Amino acid sequence: MATATLLISCLDRKGLVAKIADWLFSHGGNILHADQHTDAIAGLFLMRVEWELDGFNLTRSEIIPAFAPLAETFDAQWEIHFSDHVRRIAIFVTKQDHCLYDLILRQRSGEIPATIPLVIGNHAELESVAHNFGINYHHLPITPETKEVQEAAQLALLQQYKIDLVVLAKYMQVLSPAFLAKFPQVINIHHSFLPAFPGANPYQRAYKRGVKIIGATAHYVTQDLDEGPIVEQDVIRVSHRDSVADLIRKGKDLERIVLARAVRLHLENRVLVYGSSANSGLNLRTVVFD
Amino acid sequence: MATATLLISCLDRKGLVAKIADWLFSHGGNILHADQHTDAIAGLFLMRVEWELDGFNLTRSEIIPAFAPLAETFDAQWEIHFSDHVRRIAIFVTKQDHCLYDLILRQRSGEIPATIPLVIGNHAELESVAHNFGINYHHLPITPETKEVQEAAQLALLQQYKIDLVVLAKYMQVLSPAFLAKFPQVINIHHSFLPAFPGANPYQRAYKRGVKIIGATAHYVTQDLDEGPIVEQDVIRVSHRDSVADLIRKGKDLERIVLARAVRLHLENRVLVYGSSANSGLNLRTVVFD
Amino acid sequence: MATATLLISCLDRKGLVAKIADWLFSHGGNILHADQHTDAIAGLFLMRVEWELDGFNLTRSEIIPAFAPLAETFDAQWEIHFSDHVRRIAIFVTKQDHCLYDLILRQRSGEIPATIPLVIGNHAELESVAHNFGINYHHLPITPETKEVQEAAQLALLQQYKIDLVVLAKYMQVLSPAFLAKFPQVINIHHSFLPAFPGANPYQRAYKRGVKIIGATAHYVTQDLDEGPIVEQDVIRVSHRDSVADLIRKGKDLERIVLARAVRLHLENRVLVYGSSANSGLNLRTVVFD
Amino acid sequence: MATATLLISCLDRKGLVAKIADWLFSHGGNILHADQHTDAIAGLFLMRVEWELDGFNLTRSEIIPAFAPLAETFDAQWEIHFSDHVRRIAIFVTKQDHCLYDLILRQRSGEIPATIPLVIGNHAELESVAHNFGINYHHLPITPETKEVQEAAQLALLQQYKIDLVVLAKYMQVLSPAFLAKFPQVINIHHSFLPAFPGANPYQRAYKRGVKIIGATAHYVTQDLDEGPIVEQDVIRVSHRDSVADLIRKGKDLERIVLARAVRLHLENRVLVYGSSANSGLNLRTVVFD
Repeated sequence: MATATLLISCLDRKGLVAKIADWLFSHGGNILHADQHTDAIAGLFLMRVEWELDGFNLTRSEIIPAFAPLAETFDAQWEIHFSDHVRRIAIFVTKQDHCLYDLILRQRSGEIPATIPLVIGNHAELESVAHNFGINYHHLPITPETKEVQEAAQLALLQQYKIDLVVLAKYMQVLSPAFLAKFPQVINIHHSFLPAFPGANPYQRAYKRGVKIIGATAHYVTQDLDEGPIVEQDVIRVSHRDSVADLIRKGKDLERIVLARAVRLHLENRVLVYGSSANSGLNLRTVVFD
Repeated sequence: MATATLLISCLDRKGLVAKIADWLFSHGGNILHADQHTDAIAGLFLMRVEWELDGFNLTRSEIIPAFAPLAETFDAQWEIHFSDHVRRIAIFVTKQDHCLYDLILRQRSGEIPATIPLVIGNHAELESVAHNFGINYHHLPITPETKEVQEAAQLALLQQYKIDLVVLAKYMQVLSPAFLAKFPQVINIHHSFLPAFPGANPYQRAYKRGVKIIGATAHYVTQDLDEGPIVEQDVIRVSHRDSVADLIRKGKDLERIVLARAVRLHLENRVLVYGSSANSGLNLRTVVFD
Repeated sequence: MATATLLISCLDRKGLVAKIADWLFSHGGNILHADQHTDAIAGLFLMRVEWELDGFNLTRSEIIPAFAPLAETFDAQWEIHFSDHVRRIAIFVTKQDHCLYDLILRQRSGEIPATIPLVIGNHAELESVAHNFGINYHHLPITPETKEVQEAAQLALLQQYKIDLVVLAKYMQVLSPAFLAKFPQVINIHHSFLPAFPGANPYQRAYKRGVKIIGATAHYVTQDLDEGPIVEQDVIRVSHRDSVADLIRKGKDLERIVLARAVRLHLENRVLVYGSSANSGLNLRTVVFD
Repeated sequence: MATATLLISCLDRKGLVAKIADWLFSHGGNILHADQHTDAIAGLFLMRVEWELDGFNLTRSEIIPAFAPLAETFDAQWEIHFSDHVRRIAIFVTKQDHCLYDLILRQRSGEIPATIPLVIGNHAELESVAHNFGINYHHLPITPETKEVQEAAQLALLQQYKIDLVVLAKYMQVLSPAFLAKFPQVINIHHSFLPAFPGANPYQRAYKRGVKIIGATAHYVTQDLDEGPIVEQDVIRVSHRDSVADLIRKGKDLERIVLARAVRLHLENRVLVYGSSANSGLNLRTVVFD
């Protein structure tokens, strides 16, 4: 049963829910889920509505032009997604395989509603994993000297494979601002409970600091390293008995789960990014309509 | 800033969100929060909407008669609450004081939006706690022979003090069906992760079974002991090092927090009970719009 | 660096730690980990000691005969394991692949210190998963009529492959008492927070009951279904938004993690089972020296 | 039943467990709990042993001189505590009462094995809380100009009341190095998941950053603000629906629980601080023998 999902944000004012619900009802839309949030500090209205396409009296191609005039009256930012449009993911990896396997197996079991036609690695180690599941693997090694050229090659592959979303699955390279300007839809997994331990070697630093809980953070990638809007986090308890190797092992379970949840939330159009306006004083933040 | 909150449930059909949002907008209502859920198995639509009374062009006394005709067209069950109508809680206790103290202190700090004019105990031990905070305490001891009479006395006190909600804060007595028929708004805290270990001595039984996690459950009280609709649950990890006394100590923190959350959710009109229809096969369940 | 681990339990008395530590020291043993627990209710002393074999002045074959006389003076139950003796696991499956993949990948990454030479399925679906990783797969379908014969075939395979531990990775069959009498080292994953929802369809029943948290339980298999000693449990929060399908999806992550932790704890000789004596009133319970 | 507890740390070498257990056994000591940890990076052996005084053939005053020669042979740092020596806590507060109430009520219920003869506040607000429970309250307001004098007054009170431990229960002042040099046994609660959001206003900053989980941290106070060794941490999930006020409310439950656990662990002599040697590269860390 195909559905459409509207994600919309605009300055808060009276009647927004009524106008959007009216528009849907006037076209025969049966709302399955509606969730709305008002950020009082930012003065923003944010909403997610999902409705059945069956019985709706507009075709897919008519929906967007039909909704645009209404959205314009609110000066809104918005997007509409169709559940039967299957998005295409590229996974970027280095040498660690646990997140790669996890994403592929979840995709195979239907848990991640997308296809994965492409894996790109800056090392060759994981080529066989991709090939075992019939996925193309491109090995693009990166040095400071070759980074610009290789990122261009990556971008070309993303275009060639019609990729909608890049997932950094323990990809041990920083994407350049130029890359992100051209392809901004990137989710990363960071192996700490951000903003604790940003940057390199978070497990080693967690061990040295003697924390009693470690975490993992999935976030959209921005030009500010480890500062992108957070989609999902989770934690696990550790103790003095845990060596750095134990933290790494325990953290791998967190990384898998947190990254998979974030990818799924993104693909189900449950995440809205907002904030960062000069006067709100907010970082870029997410609303997660879960 | 006073608000009104509508809790409504009815058989699912098209246009419900639009009609409710339209009605609010037509009267100048600014929606602060709107949350909606459809239970596909029960075929039910359930919604919570909270809007500002400031700027709304109906007075409190006009709102209910104005909404009733619309609700009738859906054959809905509904209630409307006003945030500045402060509800009145009676706390029932036996000898343990941790939940009693917790609720009183949260009420005093503004965390529980209600007044607590009455504590009823089947023992005398906690009278001084109530009195320290200027709360009336009634000691109504209960034996099998006196239960009927004492429950009648309890009900008279609830009426006299104009009580809206009874909270069983480690009250070691079962309320009779007759009591519940006359006063059904009762929240209880059960010291296990229901449906594990229903009935008496759950910590002892958890210890014997050797579970690695214990829990607590807040639920509305029904005539089926420990089977009422669950409002909130939480858990904590335990190990072989924990004696029964340790489970009790750890559990007390859970009991406090889970009960306080449930009471707050109830008072914020975030809980809708539904289910139990013959053909749905469901227990009485809750939707918690948190 | 190879180590030896002693797991020992006996009636509690003075001097047990001293005598065991003395014996180790007298043979040049360097203790890496020592953990001890006294169950006051059962009157039992339980201990785990791990020491370096490097520098120890007894060979592997001398250790057990050398320790036996000391253990006899306490009337103790005990076992000694060597870290470089790699144990052999057989995984039993039906159709669901998530736990099977998880165990194999953890074994491949070194997280589970064992080999997995054998997978047995009562359906044929997962044969290709085993073969992808070079593991032998035996398809032994089971009906009420063939159960006895097929269990005999399973036992023969366990003997042939020199299996030390059977892991039921979503194996949808109950092992008979006769099987367990011949091969008692079996770990199962149950998809509920036992003792809540024992038996079949726990997710469906959790949904119907409206619980706010679901769980998974790894336990040793005994003749009492879902009553075996619990090795590990974990939970995850759910809400009214989660359908039964969502509970199943969320539960799969729990199942994977809880089962993997239990298998690892068992293989690291961290689990001691005790209890069940007539006068202790305890179930079979575990001490987990983690 | 009174017990003695030895906390000991020294450079790791063979035979430490044996020698300590032998010494206890030779004096008729029945070990109730023994827990040991070796930090391989620091090359340190750390141990906690608790034994019954009943049946031990040394009196309290003989124990320390009798153990000292043995400890000297290892060049160990050590302390011995007696469970029936009830320690004395001073609580430092400002205006927030939740941790103060919590500690007092836990002390009253027997959960915190100590007395609380003294509360010191830099504001007057909480005087009545202390007095309600019969505890002396000293109001010592602090400005930059008066800080030195008032800290001297605090230290004089600690001496007068024979205080063993200071607990900062939302005390909104930084203790000077001079204070800590004279009275180093101080536990603080920080309202973030350190090292995330050290310093002021962590909830506001957590909100701005859009984290999905918040935490609290109890640590020993050192001269490096918010860098002291961590005793306990815990976390709770938050979402975009939580305002800063909600984070503060949810955080208060964490603060209460985490601080109470840390105080209890300290009083049960379960915490050993170590690290910070030049070549280990470690922060000051804790071993928590729980």
